[in-house]
Amino acid sequence: MGDEMTVSKDVVQAVDVAARERLLAAALELFNEKGYAGTSVREIVAAAGVSKPVLYYYFKNKEGIYLELMNETYATFQGVLSQLTATSGTSSERIVAFATSIFDAFVDNIAVVRLIYAIFFGPPQGAPFFSHEQYYDSMIQFIGGLVENGVAAGELRPVNVNDVTWAVISCMNTVMEEQLCNDPPRIDREGLVRILNLILDGVAER
Amino acid sequence: MGDEMTVSKDVVQAVDVAARERLLAAALELFNEKGYAGTSVREIVAAAGVSKPVLYYYFKNKEGIYLELMNETYATFQGVLSQLTATSGTSSERIVAFATSIFDAFVDNIAVVRLIYAIFFGPPQGAPFFSHEQYYDSMIQFIGGLVENGVAAGELRPVNVNDVTWAVISCMNTVMEEQLCNDPPRIDREGLVRILNLILDGVAER
Repeated sequence: MGDEMTVSKDVVQAVDVAARERLLAAALELFNEKGYAGTSVREIVAAAGVSKPVLYYYFKNKEGIYLELMNETYATFQGVLSQLTATSGTSSERIVAFATSIFDAFVDNIAVVRLIYAIFFGPPQGAPFFSHEQYYDSMIQFIGGLVENGVAAGELRPVNVNDVTWAVISCMNTVMEEQLCNDPPRIDREGLVRILNLILDGVAER
Repeated sequence: MGDEMTVSKDVVQAVDVAARERLLAAALELFNEKGYAGTSVREIVAAAGVSKPVLYYYFKNKEGIYLELMNETYATFQGVLSQLTATSGTSSERIVAFATSIFDAFVDNIAVVRLIYAIFFGPPQGAPFFSHEQYYDSMIQFIGGLVENGVAAGELRPVNVNDVTWAVISCMNTVMEEQLCNDPPRIDREGLVRILNLILDGVAER
Protein backbone atom coordinates (compact mmCIF):
# COMPACT_ATOMS: atom_id res chain seq x y z
CA MET A 1 0.00 0.00 0.00
CA GLY A 2 2.87 2.34 0.87
CA ASP A 3 4.09 1.62 -2.61
CA GLU A 4 1.28 3.64 -4.14
CA MET A 5 1.70 7.31 -5.03
CA THR A 6 0.29 9.88 -7.35
CA VAL A 7 2.42 10.35 -10.44
CA SER A 8 2.16 13.32 -12.73
CA LYS A 9 2.12 12.61 -16.43
CA ASP A 10 5.37 14.45 -17.09
CA VAL A 11 7.30 12.02 -14.91
CA VAL A 12 6.87 9.39 -17.55
CA GLN A 13 6.81 11.71 -20.55
CA ALA A 14 10.04 10.29 -21.89
CA VAL A 15 9.24 6.67 -21.09
CA ASP A 16 9.18 4.35 -24.08
CA VAL A 17 5.85 2.57 -24.52
CA ALA A 18 7.71 -0.73 -24.50
CA ALA A 19 8.26 -0.23 -20.77
CA ARG A 20 4.61 -1.08 -20.18
CA GLU A 21 5.01 -4.38 -22.02
CA ARG A 22 8.26 -5.13 -20.21
CA LEU A 23 6.52 -4.56 -16.88
CA LEU A 24 3.70 -6.96 -17.77
CA ALA A 25 6.15 -9.61 -18.96
CA ALA A 26 8.37 -9.21 -15.89
CA ALA A 27 5.43 -9.37 -13.49
CA LEU A 28 4.05 -12.47 -15.18
CA GLU A 29 7.38 -14.26 -15.00
CA LEU A 30 7.91 -13.34 -11.34
CA PHE A 31 4.33 -14.23 -10.31
CA ASN A 32 4.79 -17.68 -11.88
CA GLU A 33 8.21 -18.18 -10.38
CA LYS A 34 7.73 -16.88 -6.84
CA GLY A 35 3.96 -16.62 -6.50
CA TYR A 36 1.87 -13.47 -6.50
CA ALA A 37 2.27 -12.88 -2.76
CA GLY A 38 6.01 -13.51 -2.93
CA THR A 39 6.64 -10.89 -5.62
CA SER A 40 7.28 -7.24 -4.75
CA VAL A 41 6.89 -4.10 -6.86
CA ARG A 42 10.61 -3.56 -6.35
CA GLU A 43 11.41 -6.89 -8.01
CA ILE A 44 9.05 -6.24 -10.91
CA VAL A 45 10.53 -2.84 -11.77
CA ALA A 46 14.07 -4.19 -11.40
CA ALA A 47 13.33 -7.07 -13.78
CA ALA A 48 11.66 -4.69 -16.27
CA GLY A 49 14.54 -2.22 -16.00
CA VAL A 50 12.31 0.75 -15.13
CA SER A 51 11.78 2.91 -12.05
CA LYS A 52 8.85 2.52 -9.65
CA PRO A 53 6.97 5.61 -10.90
CA VAL A 54 6.70 4.00 -14.33
CA LEU A 55 4.83 1.06 -12.82
CA TYR A 56 2.65 3.40 -10.75
CA TYR A 57 1.85 5.41 -13.85
CA TYR A 58 0.71 2.50 -15.96
CA PHE A 59 -0.78 0.15 -13.36
CA LYS A 60 -1.05 2.02 -10.07
CA ASN A 61 0.21 -0.98 -8.05
CA LYS A 62 0.82 -4.76 -8.02
CA GLU A 63 -2.93 -5.45 -8.02
CA GLY A 64 -3.27 -3.29 -11.11
CA ILE A 65 -0.60 -5.10 -13.08
CA TYR A 66 -2.16 -8.44 -12.13
CA LEU A 67 -5.64 -7.32 -13.21
CA GLU A 68 -4.27 -6.02 -16.49
CA LEU A 69 -2.71 -9.44 -17.20
CA MET A 70 -6.11 -11.04 -16.56
CA ASN A 71 -8.08 -8.49 -18.57
CA GLU A 72 -5.76 -8.63 -21.57
CA THR A 73 -5.87 -12.41 -21.70
CA TYR A 74 -9.63 -12.67 -21.30
CA ALA A 75 -10.04 -10.01 -23.99
CA THR A 76 -8.07 -12.33 -26.28
CA PHE A 77 -10.37 -15.24 -25.48
CA GLN A 78 -13.42 -13.02 -25.89
CA GLY A 79 -12.08 -11.97 -29.29
CA VAL A 80 -11.84 -15.61 -30.32
CA LEU A 81 -15.46 -16.11 -29.28
CA SER A 82 -16.62 -13.07 -31.25
CA GLN A 83 -14.80 -14.14 -34.41
CA LEU A 84 -16.31 -17.60 -34.18
CA THR A 85 -19.85 -16.28 -34.07
CA ALA A 86 -19.43 -15.54 -37.76
CA THR A 87 -18.00 -18.89 -38.90
CA SER A 88 -19.99 -21.16 -41.19
CA GLY A 89 -20.21 -24.93 -41.54
CA THR A 90 -22.17 -27.67 -39.81
CA SER A 91 -22.65 -27.45 -36.08
CA SER A 92 -20.04 -30.14 -35.54
CA GLU A 93 -17.53 -28.33 -37.73
CA ARG A 94 -18.19 -25.11 -35.85
CA ILE A 95 -17.78 -26.84 -32.47
CA VAL A 96 -14.42 -28.25 -33.54
CA ALA A 97 -13.37 -24.84 -34.94
CA PHE A 98 -14.35 -23.22 -31.65
CA ALA A 99 -12.49 -25.80 -29.56
CA THR A 100 -9.29 -25.56 -31.58
CA SER A 101 -9.37 -21.75 -31.56
CA ILE A 102 -9.71 -21.71 -27.78
CA PHE A 103 -7.00 -24.38 -27.57
CA ASP A 104 -4.66 -22.20 -29.66
CA ALA A 105 -5.37 -19.13 -27.53
CA PHE A 106 -4.74 -21.23 -24.41
CA VAL A 107 -1.35 -22.39 -25.69
CA ASP A 108 -0.41 -18.92 -26.95
CA ASN A 109 -1.14 -17.50 -23.50
CA ILE A 110 0.09 -20.44 -21.47
CA ALA A 111 2.15 -18.32 -19.04
CA VAL A 112 -0.90 -16.28 -18.03
CA VAL A 113 -2.99 -19.45 -17.91
CA ARG A 114 -0.42 -20.91 -15.52
CA LEU A 115 -0.85 -17.88 -13.28
CA ILE A 116 -4.65 -18.14 -13.45
CA TYR A 117 -4.49 -21.79 -12.33
CA ALA A 118 -2.02 -20.95 -9.56
CA ILE A 119 -4.25 -18.22 -8.15
CA PHE A 120 -7.43 -20.21 -8.66
CA PHE A 121 -6.28 -23.50 -7.13
CA GLY A 122 -3.36 -22.34 -5.02
CA PRO A 123 -3.39 -21.13 -1.42
CA PRO A 124 -4.76 -17.64 -0.73
CA GLN A 125 -2.21 -15.10 -1.99
CA GLY A 126 -4.10 -11.85 -1.61
CA ALA A 127 -4.57 -11.37 -5.35
CA PRO A 128 -7.57 -9.15 -6.17
CA PHE A 129 -10.75 -10.96 -7.14
CA PHE A 130 -11.20 -11.73 -10.79
CA SER A 131 -14.23 -13.59 -12.10
CA HIS A 132 -13.08 -16.46 -14.28
CA GLU A 133 -16.48 -18.12 -14.16
CA GLN A 134 -18.06 -15.43 -16.27
CA TYR A 135 -15.83 -16.42 -19.18
CA TYR A 136 -16.32 -20.13 -18.57
CA ASP A 137 -20.09 -19.65 -18.56
CA SER A 138 -19.98 -17.79 -21.86
CA MET A 139 -18.02 -20.71 -23.36
CA ILE A 140 -20.65 -23.17 -22.10
CA GLN A 141 -23.39 -21.00 -23.56
CA PHE A 142 -21.62 -20.70 -26.90
CA ILE A 143 -21.12 -24.46 -27.28
CA GLY A 144 -24.66 -25.07 -26.04
CA GLY A 145 -25.99 -22.80 -28.78
CA LEU A 146 -24.06 -24.69 -31.45
CA VAL A 147 -25.30 -28.06 -30.20
CA GLU A 148 -28.87 -26.72 -30.08
CA ASN A 149 -28.55 -25.52 -33.69
CA GLY A 150 -27.24 -28.94 -34.69
CA VAL A 151 -30.24 -30.67 -33.17
CA ALA A 152 -32.65 -28.15 -34.69
CA ALA A 153 -31.05 -28.61 -38.13
CA GLY A 154 -31.35 -32.39 -37.85
CA GLU A 155 -27.57 -32.82 -37.97
CA LEU A 156 -27.52 -34.23 -34.45
CA ARG A 157 -30.02 -36.64 -32.90
CA PRO A 158 -32.38 -35.11 -30.31
CA VAL A 159 -29.89 -35.66 -27.51
CA ASN A 160 -29.62 -33.73 -24.25
CA VAL A 161 -27.98 -30.46 -25.35
CA ASN A 162 -26.48 -29.86 -21.93
CA ASP A 163 -24.84 -33.29 -21.82
CA VAL A 164 -23.22 -32.91 -25.24
CA THR A 165 -22.02 -29.46 -24.21
CA TRP A 166 -20.37 -30.83 -21.07
CA ALA A 167 -18.79 -33.68 -23.00
CA VAL A 168 -17.26 -31.15 -25.41
CA ILE A 169 -16.09 -28.76 -22.72
CA SER A 170 -14.66 -31.64 -20.70
CA CYS A 171 -12.46 -32.73 -23.57
CA MET A 172 -11.33 -29.16 -24.20
CA ASN A 173 -10.44 -28.71 -20.51
CA THR A 174 -8.52 -31.91 -20.12
CA VAL A 175 -6.53 -31.62 -23.34
CA MET A 176 -5.69 -27.97 -22.55
CA GLU A 177 -4.66 -28.82 -18.98
CA GLU A 178 -2.47 -31.54 -20.41
CA GLN A 179 -0.52 -28.86 -22.33
CA LEU A 180 -0.10 -26.98 -19.05
CA CYS A 181 1.02 -29.93 -16.94
CA ASN A 182 2.90 -32.42 -19.07
CA ASP A 183 5.86 -32.03 -21.33
CA PRO A 184 5.43 -33.65 -23.74
CA PRO A 185 1.62 -33.71 -23.39
CA ARG A 186 0.07 -37.18 -23.71
CA ILE A 187 -2.62 -35.76 -25.99
CA ASP A 188 -2.34 -32.77 -28.35
CA ARG A 189 -4.41 -30.53 -30.62
CA GLU A 190 -4.96 -33.30 -33.18
CA GLY A 191 -6.04 -35.61 -30.38
CA LEU A 192 -8.58 -33.03 -29.26
CA VAL A 193 -10.01 -32.84 -32.78
CA ARG A 194 -10.23 -36.64 -32.93
CA ILE A 195 -12.02 -37.06 -29.61
CA LEU A 196 -14.46 -34.24 -30.37
CA ASN A 197 -15.28 -35.83 -33.72
CA LEU A 198 -15.68 -39.18 -31.99
CA ILE A 199 -18.25 -37.67 -29.61
CA LEU A 200 -20.03 -35.64 -32.29
CA ASP A 201 -20.15 -38.55 -34.76
CA GLY A 202 -21.67 -40.58 -31.95
CA VAL A 203 -24.57 -38.17 -31.58
CA ALA A 204 -24.95 -37.43 -35.31
CA GLU A 205 -28.22 -38.30 -37.05
CA ARG A 206 -27.69 -41.78 -38.53
CA MET B 1 14.70 -28.61 10.04
CA GLY B 2 15.37 -27.46 13.60
CA ASP B 3 11.95 -28.88 14.36
CA GLU B 4 13.17 -32.41 13.88
CA MET B 5 14.37 -34.51 16.77
CA THR B 6 14.72 -38.11 17.76
CA VAL B 7 11.89 -39.26 19.98
CA SER B 8 12.02 -42.40 22.05
CA LYS B 9 8.96 -44.62 21.96
CA ASP B 10 8.19 -44.15 25.67
CA VAL B 11 7.62 -40.43 25.19
CA VAL B 12 4.39 -41.20 23.42
CA GLN B 13 3.58 -44.41 25.24
CA ALA B 14 0.47 -42.88 26.78
CA VAL B 15 -0.64 -41.03 23.67
CA ASP B 16 -4.06 -41.99 22.36
CA VAL B 17 -4.01 -43.27 18.80
CA ALA B 18 -6.61 -40.66 17.91
CA ALA B 19 -3.86 -38.03 18.22
CA ARG B 20 -2.41 -39.25 14.93
CA GLU B 21 -5.73 -38.74 13.17
CA ARG B 22 -6.20 -35.34 14.80
CA LEU B 23 -2.76 -34.27 13.57
CA LEU B 24 -3.57 -35.34 9.99
CA ALA B 25 -6.92 -33.53 10.08
CA ALA B 26 -5.42 -30.38 11.61
CA ALA B 27 -2.55 -30.30 9.12
CA LEU B 28 -4.92 -30.75 6.18
CA GLU B 29 -7.17 -27.94 7.34
CA LEU B 30 -4.25 -25.57 7.93
CA PHE B 31 -2.52 -26.43 4.64
CA ASN B 32 -5.74 -25.63 2.78
CA GLU B 33 -6.38 -22.46 4.75
CA LYS B 34 -2.90 -20.93 4.89
CA GLY B 35 -0.95 -22.88 2.31
CA TYR B 36 1.68 -25.54 2.96
CA ALA B 37 4.53 -23.04 3.22
CA GLY B 38 2.50 -20.79 5.50
CA THR B 39 1.77 -23.52 8.06
CA SER B 40 4.15 -24.30 10.91
CA VAL B 41 4.54 -27.44 13.01
CA ARG B 42 3.67 -25.28 16.02
CA GLU B 43 0.28 -24.39 14.50
CA ILE B 44 -0.46 -28.00 13.57
CA VAL B 45 0.21 -29.36 17.06
CA ALA B 46 -1.75 -26.51 18.64
CA ALA B 47 -4.76 -27.21 16.41
CA ALA B 48 -4.55 -30.94 17.13
CA GLY B 49 -4.14 -30.33 20.85
CA VAL B 50 -0.95 -32.36 21.16
CA SER B 51 2.69 -31.57 21.92
CA LYS B 52 5.41 -31.37 19.26
CA PRO B 53 7.03 -34.72 20.17
CA VAL B 54 3.77 -36.48 19.25
CA LEU B 55 3.98 -35.08 15.73
CA TYR B 56 7.68 -35.97 15.52
CA TYR B 57 6.92 -39.49 16.68
CA TYR B 58 4.24 -40.18 14.11
CA PHE B 59 5.43 -38.13 11.15
CA LYS B 60 8.97 -36.91 11.84
CA ASN B 61 8.20 -33.40 10.47
CA LYS B 62 5.87 -31.28 8.32
CA GLU B 63 7.04 -33.02 5.13
CA GLY B 64 6.17 -36.36 6.73
CA ILE B 65 2.63 -35.37 7.64
CA TYR B 66 2.10 -34.01 4.12
CA LEU B 67 3.40 -37.19 2.50
CA GLU B 68 1.19 -39.30 4.76
CA LEU B 69 -1.87 -37.32 3.62
CA MET B 70 -0.89 -38.01 0.00
CA ASN B 71 -0.09 -41.68 0.57
CA GLU B 72 -3.31 -42.39 2.48
CA THR B 73 -5.44 -40.75 -0.19
CA TYR B 74 -3.74 -42.44 -3.11
CA ALA B 75 -4.02 -45.75 -1.28
CA THR B 76 -7.78 -45.17 -1.17
CA PHE B 77 -7.87 -44.52 -4.91
CA GLN B 78 -5.66 -47.53 -5.55
CA GLY B 79 -8.08 -49.61 -3.47
CA VAL B 80 -10.96 -48.46 -5.66
CA LEU B 81 -9.00 -49.54 -8.73
CA SER B 82 -8.23 -52.96 -7.26
CA GLN B 83 -11.85 -53.61 -6.32
CA LEU B 84 -13.00 -52.67 -9.79
CA THR B 85 -10.72 -55.19 -11.46
CA ALA B 86 -13.14 -57.82 -10.20
CA THR B 87 -16.42 -56.21 -11.34
CA SER B 88 -18.50 -57.83 -14.06
CA GLY B 89 -20.79 -56.42 -16.75
CA THR B 90 -20.26 -55.04 -20.24
CA SER B 91 -17.23 -52.86 -20.88
CA SER B 92 -19.41 -49.77 -20.90
CA GLU B 93 -21.03 -50.72 -17.60
CA ARG B 94 -17.61 -51.32 -16.08
CA ILE B 95 -16.31 -47.97 -17.36
CA VAL B 96 -19.26 -46.16 -15.79
CA ALA B 97 -18.80 -48.13 -12.55
CA PHE B 98 -15.13 -47.19 -12.53
CA ALA B 99 -15.81 -43.51 -13.18
CA THR B 100 -18.47 -43.22 -10.47
CA SER B 101 -16.30 -45.04 -7.94
CA ILE B 102 -13.42 -42.67 -8.58
CA PHE B 103 -15.87 -39.76 -8.48
CA ASP B 104 -17.13 -40.92 -5.07
CA ALA B 105 -13.60 -41.30 -3.72
CA PHE B 106 -12.78 -37.82 -5.06
CA VAL B 107 -15.76 -36.27 -3.27
CA ASP B 108 -15.11 -38.25 -0.07
CA ASN B 109 -11.54 -36.96 -0.03
CA ILE B 110 -12.24 -33.50 -1.38
CA ALA B 111 -10.17 -31.69 1.26
CA VAL B 112 -7.03 -33.66 0.35
CA VAL B 113 -7.84 -33.25 -3.34
CA ARG B 114 -8.00 -29.48 -2.75
CA LEU B 115 -4.53 -29.62 -1.24
CA ILE B 116 -3.22 -31.72 -4.13
CA TYR B 117 -4.51 -29.14 -6.64
CA ALA B 118 -3.07 -26.27 -4.60
CA ILE B 119 0.39 -27.84 -4.51
CA PHE B 120 0.24 -29.01 -8.11
CA PHE B 121 -0.98 -25.78 -9.68
CA GLY B 122 -0.02 -23.24 -7.04
CA PRO B 123 3.25 -21.37 -6.63
CA PRO B 124 6.27 -23.31 -5.33
CA GLN B 125 5.72 -23.96 -1.62
CA GLY B 126 8.58 -26.28 -0.79
CA ALA B 127 6.35 -29.33 -0.38
CA PRO B 128 8.24 -32.59 -0.93
CA PHE B 129 7.87 -34.18 -4.35
CA PHE B 130 4.99 -36.58 -4.79
CA SER B 131 4.27 -38.28 -8.09
CA HIS B 132 0.63 -37.78 -8.98
CA GLU B 133 1.19 -38.80 -12.57
CA GLN B 134 1.83 -42.39 -11.63
CA TYR B 135 -1.74 -42.68 -10.38
CA TYR B 136 -3.17 -40.79 -13.35
CA ASP B 137 -1.33 -43.11 -15.73
CA SER B 138 -2.72 -46.18 -13.99
CA MET B 139 -6.24 -44.75 -14.41
CA ILE B 140 -5.62 -44.19 -18.12
CA GLN B 141 -4.32 -47.74 -18.45
CA PHE B 142 -7.29 -49.18 -16.59
CA ILE B 143 -9.87 -47.39 -18.74
CA GLY B 144 -7.85 -48.23 -21.86
CA GLY B 145 -8.01 -51.90 -20.93
CA LEU B 146 -11.80 -51.78 -20.54
CA VAL B 147 -12.24 -50.02 -23.88
CA GLU B 148 -9.95 -52.55 -25.54
CA ASN B 149 -12.00 -55.41 -24.09
CA GLY B 150 -15.18 -53.75 -25.36
CA VAL B 151 -13.80 -53.57 -28.88
CA ALA B 152 -12.49 -57.15 -28.72
CA ALA B 153 -15.90 -58.40 -27.49
CA GLY B 154 -17.69 -56.58 -30.32
CA GLU B 155 -19.57 -54.33 -27.88
CA LEU B 156 -17.82 -51.25 -29.21
CA ARG B 157 -17.01 -50.45 -32.82
CA PRO B 158 -13.31 -50.72 -33.77
CA VAL B 159 -12.63 -47.15 -32.69
CA ASN B 160 -9.31 -45.70 -31.55
CA VAL B 161 -8.98 -47.06 -28.00
CA ASN B 162 -6.79 -44.17 -26.91
CA ASP B 163 -9.30 -41.58 -28.09
CA VAL B 164 -12.23 -43.18 -26.27
CA THR B 165 -10.06 -43.43 -23.15
CA TRP B 166 -9.25 -39.72 -23.27
CA ALA B 167 -12.88 -38.81 -23.86
CA VAL B 168 -13.84 -40.80 -20.75
CA ILE B 169 -11.05 -39.44 -18.58
CA SER B 170 -11.79 -35.90 -19.76
CA CYS B 171 -15.39 -36.12 -18.57
CA MET B 172 -14.31 -37.61 -15.25
CA ASN B 173 -11.76 -34.81 -14.73
CA THR B 174 -14.07 -31.96 -15.57
CA VAL B 175 -17.05 -33.20 -13.57
CA MET B 176 -14.80 -33.90 -10.58
CA GLU B 177 -13.13 -30.48 -10.81
CA GLU B 178 -16.59 -28.97 -10.93
CA GLN B 179 -17.29 -30.45 -7.46
CA LEU B 180 -14.05 -28.86 -6.27
CA CYS B 181 -14.63 -25.41 -7.70
CA ASN B 182 -18.31 -24.63 -7.84
CA ASP B 183 -20.96 -24.70 -5.17
CA PRO B 184 -23.43 -25.83 -6.33
CA PRO B 185 -21.63 -27.69 -9.14
CA ARG B 186 -23.14 -27.15 -12.58
CA ILE B 187 -22.88 -30.88 -13.30
CA ASP B 188 -23.02 -33.74 -10.78
CA ARG B 189 -22.56 -37.51 -10.47
CA GLU B 190 -25.71 -38.25 -12.46
CA GLY B 191 -24.55 -35.85 -15.15
CA LEU B 192 -21.25 -37.72 -15.34
CA VAL B 193 -23.09 -41.01 -15.83
CA ARG B 194 -25.21 -39.44 -18.56
CA ILE B 195 -22.32 -37.97 -20.54
CA LEU B 196 -20.30 -41.18 -20.27
CA ASN B 197 -23.25 -43.20 -21.56
CA LEU B 198 -23.69 -40.64 -24.33
CA ILE B 199 -20.09 -41.15 -25.43
CA LEU B 200 -20.15 -44.93 -25.00
CA ASP B 201 -23.49 -45.31 -26.81
CA GLY B 202 -21.96 -43.28 -29.61
CA VAL B 203 -19.15 -45.79 -30.10
CA ALA B 204 -21.27 -48.89 -29.44
CA GLU B 205 -21.67 -51.49 -32.17
CA ARG B 206 -24.88 -50.56 -34.02
